[in-house]
Amino acid sequence: MEKFELHILGCGSALPTTRHFSTSQVLNVRDKLFMIDCGEGAQLQFRKSRLKFSRLNHIFISHLHGDHCFGLMGLISTLNLLGRTAELHIHSPKGLEELLTPMLAFFNRQMTYKVLFHEFATQEAGLIYEDRSLTVTTIPLCHRMPCCGFLFAEKPRPNHIVREMIDYYQIPVYELNRIKNGADYVTPEGETISNAILTRPSARPRSYAYCSDTIYLPSVIPQIKGVDLLFHEATFAEADAPRAKETFHTTASQAAQIARDAEVGQLLIGHFSARYEDESVLLQEASAVFPRTRLAQETLCITL
Amino acid sequence: MEKFELHILGCGSALPTTRHFSTSQVLNVRDKLFMIDCGEGAQLQFRKSRLKFSRLNHIFISHLHGDHCFGLMGLISTLNLLGRTAELHIHSPKGLEELLTPMLAFFNRQMTYKVLFHEFATQEAGLIYEDRSLTVTTIPLCHRMPCCGFLFAEKPRPNHIVREMIDYYQIPVYELNRIKNGADYVTPEGETISNAILTRPSARPRSYAYCSDTIYLPSVIPQIKGVDLLFHEATFAEADAPRAKETFHTTASQAAQIARDAEVGQLLIGHFSARYEDESVLLQEASAVFPRTRLAQETLCITL
Repeated sequence: MEKFELHILGCGSALPTTRHFSTSQVLNVRDKLFMIDCGEGAQLQFRKSRLKFSRLNHIFISHLHGDHCFGLMGLISTLNLLGRTAELHIHSPKGLEELLTPMLAFFNRQMTYKVLFHEFATQEAGLIYEDRSLTVTTIPLCHRMPCCGFLFAEKPRPNHIVREMIDYYQIPVYELNRIKNGADYVTPEGETISNAILTRPSARPRSYAYCSDTIYLPSVIPQIKGVDLLFHEATFAEADAPRAKETFHTTASQAAQIARDAEVGQLLIGHFSARYEDESVLLQEASAVFPRTRLAQETLCITL
Repeated sequence: MEKFELHILGCGSALPTTRHFSTSQVLNVRDKLFMIDCGEGAQLQFRKSRLKFSRLNHIFISHLHGDHCFGLMGLISTLNLLGRTAELHIHSPKGLEELLTPMLAFFNRQMTYKVLFHEFATQEAGLIYEDRSLTVTTIPLCHRMPCCGFLFAEKPRPNHIVREMIDYYQIPVYELNRIKNGADYVTPEGETISNAILTRPSARPRSYAYCSDTIYLPSVIPQIKGVDLLFHEATFAEADAPRAKETFHTTASQAAQIARDAEVGQLLIGHFSARYEDESVLLQEASAVFPRTRLAQETLCITL
């Protein structure tokens, strides 16, 4: 099966701890790497996860808080030192280009490659990336500033031809695309051969949703319904629920409610507040609501 | 003895590796912390070294290359999240304030404390910090952009009074300061008591010199003569000497020549190029010239 892997580079929140880097992840879809948020140290963790810079062409920034984007300058500079030539695309809410351009001009006087900034609106879901096999759509979130999550969805693939049956019925090559896409075959004698006999289903398209940072927001549920893997921030434990609401963050059990109501395959929680010496309380509270929950941790890799 | 400790937070050079963070150090002089350079991840390493943010009031930036200052935004933001109220002083060559001010305004809309930028000239040595017990002086270096090292020097302290002798000669309290500062004592009977009998010498003032980044530059020798500890960049091995010259960096053996000719107590080398899988070649080459050489490494602490 082709790769669909999530790498956690950092899963802490704004305050640094000795246990966690700030937020950054990389989704590997068939060896194309997509970075999601880029907190300080992301490039170090990228290396530690043995990922290849040359495979990274798109970075998605959820919102312009420092713990989600302070790693960009270092990463961009490193790619320049490495002599990158391919364009690098950075998708974010409005404002990032204006902030980074003077810094880039000063610290990287000669750029070997282009950084292209793409702003997305944060009020409504929108398609912001598409290739042959994948789409990326924004998930509007509610935080202290404009913020979106991201839904990465593989496109459905045509069915696989069952070679033996094609040979058996001596089906001409020019019919094969129609059959892959679901058509039956009618023989020269007028007999209809059902598509189900001629093909077997391709792998189910996989999907990953990233929701951080946000207050508990059930309005995301229809959009992330049935995803294979949901990363949801779980900054606080239930005891700190008032603090979560006040700072527009989510508790672990709220994240699990979202996962349960969206009927996702697995829930991965992260963006842990520095106040928890270990996150077992968060795992317990989330698992009580949605058992298929895991704690994020640095260099964790989840394969779908 | 009062503290005079150097903590290495990062000792890599521009390209990140899985082994080294980019440049940052903290000098602890009697529990006042002085940060020297602030590469990406410095705040994480600061925590890892179990240092206290509240004791940090001055940051010295040698030059405006990203691997020496990209950690500033994260650190400043963290101190703000922690509700710091004390002013933070950042000393650097010209240009940093202009670069950081728009970023600070955007990412820290409400600052709980003031960041004060101090620019130093890079052509001549200058006193840029002084308190009761310490001076910090710039060391002009030669790199691809304006750059200075820093000399941290304890001030000489008055001699210690030998209490028993003071009692024995019944010396009045108002004489004590003069005696501490070296005066003899003349008794009411006209007898001169030598200062050497009344006092014992205080601890010798300690000193630390930081030289990074720079091409091999013997002109620094008079200024760093006899320091207890010299940190000198040693980006390259001798085999890469042409590359060192071209990029205005130093080889390990050149760093050791500086240490030998300046008759320093110990040499600590760092700012290692990412090309060396391990730095034993650098240590060998430097030690051949100056045996009291050590390799820097993350979380290393050297006590003087």
